[in-house]
Amino acid sequence: MNDYNVISNIKSLGIDMIKNAGSGHPGIVLSAAPIIYTLYNYHMNVNPIDSNWYNRDRFVLSAGHGSALFYSTLFMAGFNITINDLKKFRHIDSITPGHPEVDVTPGVDCTTGPLGQGIANSVGLALGEKILKEKYNDIDYRVYCLVGDGDLMEGISYEAASIAGNLKLNNLIVLYDSNDVCLDGNVSKTFTENVRGRFESLGWNTILVNDGNNVDEINSAIKYAKASDKPVLIQVKTKIGDGSLLEGTNKVHGSVLSDEDTIQLKNKLGVPNELFYYNNELRELMKNNILNRIKGKYNSNNPLLINNNYNLLNIDFNFDMDKREATRDSNHKFIEYLCNNIPNFIGGSADTGSTTKTLVSSLNDINSNNYNGNNIWYGVREHSMGAISNGLALSNLRPYCSTFLSFSDYLKPAMRLSALMKLPVTYIFSHDSINVGQDGPTHQPVEQLAMIRSIPNMKLFRPADIKELQGCWHVILNSNNNPSTLVLSRTEVSVYDNTSIVESTKGGYIFLKEKESLDFIIIATGTELEYANKIGKELLNNDYYNFRIVSMPSIEQFLLQTEEYRKNVLPNNTKIIVIEAGSMFGWNRISNNIECITIDNFGYSGTKDEVLDKMDYSYEKVRNKIFEIINSNK
Amino acid sequence: MNDYNVISNIKSLGIDMIKNAGSGHPGIVLSAAPIIYTLYNYHMNVNPIDSNWYNRDRFVLSAGHGSALFYSTLFMAGFNITINDLKKFRHIDSITPGHPEVDVTPGVDCTTGPLGQGIANSVGLALGEKILKEKYNDIDYRVYCLVGDGDLMEGISYEAASIAGNLKLNNLIVLYDSNDVCLDGNVSKTFTENVRGRFESLGWNTILVNDGNNVDEINSAIKYAKASDKPVLIQVKTKIGDGSLLEGTNKVHGSVLSDEDTIQLKNKLGVPNELFYYNNELRELMKNNILNRIKGKYNSNNPLLINNNYNLLNIDFNFDMDKREATRDSNHKFIEYLCNNIPNFIGGSADTGSTTKTLVSSLNDINSNNYNGNNIWYGVREHSMGAISNGLALSNLRPYCSTFLSFSDYLKPAMRLSALMKLPVTYIFSHDSINVGQDGPTHQPVEQLAMIRSIPNMKLFRPADIKELQGCWHVILNSNNNPSTLVLSRTEVSVYDNTSIVESTKGGYIFLKEKESLDFIIIATGTELEYANKIGKELLNNDYYNFRIVSMPSIEQFLLQTEEYRKNVLPNNTKIIVIEAGSMFGWNRISNNIECITIDNFGYSGTKDEVLDKMDYSYEKVRNKIFEIINSNK
Repeated sequence: MNDYNVISNIKSLGIDMIKNAGSGHPGIVLSAAPIIYTLYNYHMNVNPIDSNWYNRDRFVLSAGHGSALFYSTLFMAGFNITINDLKKFRHIDSITPGHPEVDVTPGVDCTTGPLGQGIANSVGLALGEKILKEKYNDIDYRVYCLVGDGDLMEGISYEAASIAGNLKLNNLIVLYDSNDVCLDGNVSKTFTENVRGRFESLGWNTILVNDGNNVDEINSAIKYAKASDKPVLIQVKTKIGDGSLLEGTNKVHGSVLSDEDTIQLKNKLGVPNELFYYNNELRELMKNNILNRIKGKYNSNNPLLINNNYNLLNIDFNFDMDKREATRDSNHKFIEYLCNNIPNFIGGSADTGSTTKTLVSSLNDINSNNYNGNNIWYGVREHSMGAISNGLALSNLRPYCSTFLSFSDYLKPAMRLSALMKLPVTYIFSHDSINVGQDGPTHQPVEQLAMIRSIPNMKLFRPADIKELQGCWHVILNSNNNPSTLVLSRTEVSVYDNTSIVESTKGGYIFLKEKESLDFIIIATGTELEYANKIGKELLNNDYYNFRIVSMPSIEQFLLQTEEYRKNVLPNNTKIIVIEAGSMFGWNRISNNIECITIDNFGYSGTKDEVLDKMDYSYEKVRNKIFEIINSNK
Repeated sequence: MNDYNVISNIKSLGIDMIKNAGSGHPGIVLSAAPIIYTLYNYHMNVNPIDSNWYNRDRFVLSAGHGSALFYSTLFMAGFNITINDLKKFRHIDSITPGHPEVDVTPGVDCTTGPLGQGIANSVGLALGEKILKEKYNDIDYRVYCLVGDGDLMEGISYEAASIAGNLKLNNLIVLYDSNDVCLDGNVSKTFTENVRGRFESLGWNTILVNDGNNVDEINSAIKYAKASDKPVLIQVKTKIGDGSLLEGTNKVHGSVLSDEDTIQLKNKLGVPNELFYYNNELRELMKNNILNRIKGKYNSNNPLLINNNYNLLNIDFNFDMDKREATRDSNHKFIEYLCNNIPNFIGGSADTGSTTKTLVSSLNDINSNNYNGNNIWYGVREHSMGAISNGLALSNLRPYCSTFLSFSDYLKPAMRLSALMKLPVTYIFSHDSINVGQDGPTHQPVEQLAMIRSIPNMKLFRPADIKELQGCWHVILNSNNNPSTLVLSRTEVSVYDNTSIVESTKGGYIFLKEKESLDFIIIATGTELEYANKIGKELLNNDYYNFRIVSMPSIEQFLLQTEEYRKNVLPNNTKIIVIEAGSMFGWNRISNNIECITIDNFGYSGTKDEVLDKMDYSYEKVRNKIFEIINSNK
């Protein structure tokens, strides 16, 4: 009876929150309340009083539109959320935003909303637990995830589930609110697959709960799942908008219930017709059930006190100053060093590790028999690689992941969530321009630098040589509240006399200073510093001295410097010429007085030199353009 | 014996092409040659002499890195590819680029390379055939697709396969080169799922071919597949690099074979050790096999002569000039009109049609019992929605697809391929700014306008009202060689006196002209034209007359106008202030003398007004910024 009453109260609060806010999703509140209640009341090892307990079970609401359900459950479970917080649902500066946001609401472990991301984040969290357990004896928690039909239609859910099956992540339990209805209508119109069959093919165990209102049945399924040697999908058959006059239809998915409907619903549930009614005794009861369960297990000390500040600047990597080397190869040295020296530094690639040079063959691979390693094998699954990295970062690991820059497109939704969650994930993309040549336009990035730089709270680094790369890694390792993107070449570059490890930590710096007065500035990034350097020499040979070359491995990092520093590097009103083998988009952040020698069209298949010539980006053509600009400004 | 000899010749040519180019992928050439040979020699209804025959079977090499295999097969099949073309493999301006490119090589039906796209394009091609068959009696072809392990690991392959199963596309046959090895190593490290079980769960039939060198076994499998009532996956067990000294290892995936290896391989195959050797009799034989098969079926007349030029400008939609309406709602009228008036206009959404307002309830849904409809139900599968739209466009349809702007992230890889293939797909994204309010930052686009605009050959339209929308649709319908993106609001807007259907076809035009001299220009797009319009009135009320307002629904379309027109709208050296509720990226294409009042950070959950205020984007705050700029420039 208590079960029913708490569930009813969770439902009525959720419905009231949505009504009060004027928007939200009643459908899932009414279908999935028994699932989430059963999970929290009978299974979740969490501490409502210390919601950040390191050894807690994690819960991810992949169906993030069910936020009202989630918050009302956390409220009834005694987390530090007040009835007033519920009243501020979906209002500015509340702790109850429209979709769950990590670090905003006590008890929310992950930001969700874009469908499919949450289940992939959960796979990352579950893998994170397996990896941490190898390093810390007492780590022992499970990851629960609630998904809807929409999550499971997303390709990322398949990718992540396939990885979870391959890695035998039996600490992961996915609860599937199988209510047969999505936003536009009945799922029979679009989603007729055998979902459990699909998950079983991926190496999961599955359980069917026939009656989603039956707490005992849900409870038994979770108990059974906890004993599994594989990840588990529990399909719980429910009715969308259960008890509403619109039950079973898509009309109840995302619209506020009418007054009439609310009254009859609360009547049916046995809840007083009173806005934001709650029974405090039931709340205390649920809270105590949880507190009793974790007695003996809860520990307020956090052993995972990982030092997130690293000084990489003074380490001597014995560069061979005379060796031309692609920055992807230079980077391999740092990856290997960091894996060996930073305990929580870990990563992998989407089946491109041998060519992005991020696979460290001297270290162990992570697999289902051994989670004590460094190399994660993601397979050709870029999107879930990004989302799993987010889950690893939420587990206090420092993950990197990698593929070719042109395929960063596949990861965009996950990269955006890294930035939104302020997670220190490092995305490593090699093959960074039309320079890749023969593989042709599908493999030649053009607009990707712009795409990534335009993500708020993301820092992109495109170092010109191994020295700048060291400086960039220093910044990346000390950036604890944002993701970073490291863009690397397959083309060999020199180590320049004028580049600087320390200066490159400022994002942009003077590579070559003007001899007399300053007429214009050339900014270059990455491989294009070679062009700038050569052009500089030609200019000097032609007795032209009034220019400056600025190397700018990271625009975002440069923009974080003091105005004084920035004005010192780029004095006001000085003409700037940018050389970068990518889109011109975004350079207007630096200055208005700017001329872009960039690449804004798709490439071609041909040798590197053929392609550069075809696209007017050979050294000679770029040099000529610069001379033209100089002459026209004389 | 002939089978073996042709296959051997295909293999040796592929190996020679890669050797000659200095790069390429021998692994798949040697594993999959028998598959593609059997398909073309015994099944494909194509005409080597008329490779664009409208009623041909389609072939998509989803594993696009197998291009050498594909071209050498087309060569042996008698397509219009010379031995010299094979010698120019991966060189600039050849018809044999590094990855297959449609419209470049006779016999290539689709551009591929980024893994997983091809299988989803194939689903679009297969759906396209089903739809066309309802409109044209004699349409009757199959779609074949060759995939590797990498394709099937991609989430998009799952999404597309799920849709194909739901729609019972039994004209689709996917041949799976199951060679157990991917770029980084053995697939057992990452891909241990039961692939056939997975496809069966999605409503497919599957067949296992145990010996990938056995032409009879492959042949029987294809025959059986052609009689299926569902889409079919044929898993063909092969050996990567079959016959090479590196057979069965990832070393043979993407590196040129050594001389020693090439010699022993050709010896094993019974092919003379002679670069680019081919047996012309075998070539004639294969070509004639194909020509004989299509006798009686081939027809050089193309009934699909669809008029791709539409004049939408003079049609009177009877706008209610006094009604405030969201542009997503205005757009519904056009979608309905276009579906009713343009025979090949068709589309759907990723389970958001009821809120992007692209679902036309007065028209039929397409489903497995009826392909004679207009509404395609993609489910929550944005990525494959984009790629399937590409396949529909390759089928001579004019597809649109839709979701929320913030989820355009999920489609980016498919949008890029629309642009690369020059396909007239229309992407319709509603909920176009932080204006969406309560759903919070995951649902509020910020950098998406920039992401999409930065794709070469993509045109983005963000109309301010229903009149501009009509002009935008006119441009979209007449853009046959590029994809378009239509960005729509959920926020209501007025119909402005000053907007113009005709002028908006130019991408940007003078909305309000200066009274006297011109001090500065305000550019606005979409919902922000309302701000500009109000600010204009305030300025006039304050006796400030020297400004101009420009409405710019499409920067890309504006940049295509004559220089004279552009200079007329935006005279040189005039200060420009941009008001757009999105990233500042890309506005430097318009002018250097520009000040952006844009949104470059993530949003918040709150009511629309709360969010606008919090992000300094309320009307008052934007107006004040403009007044500040004006005053500081006085």
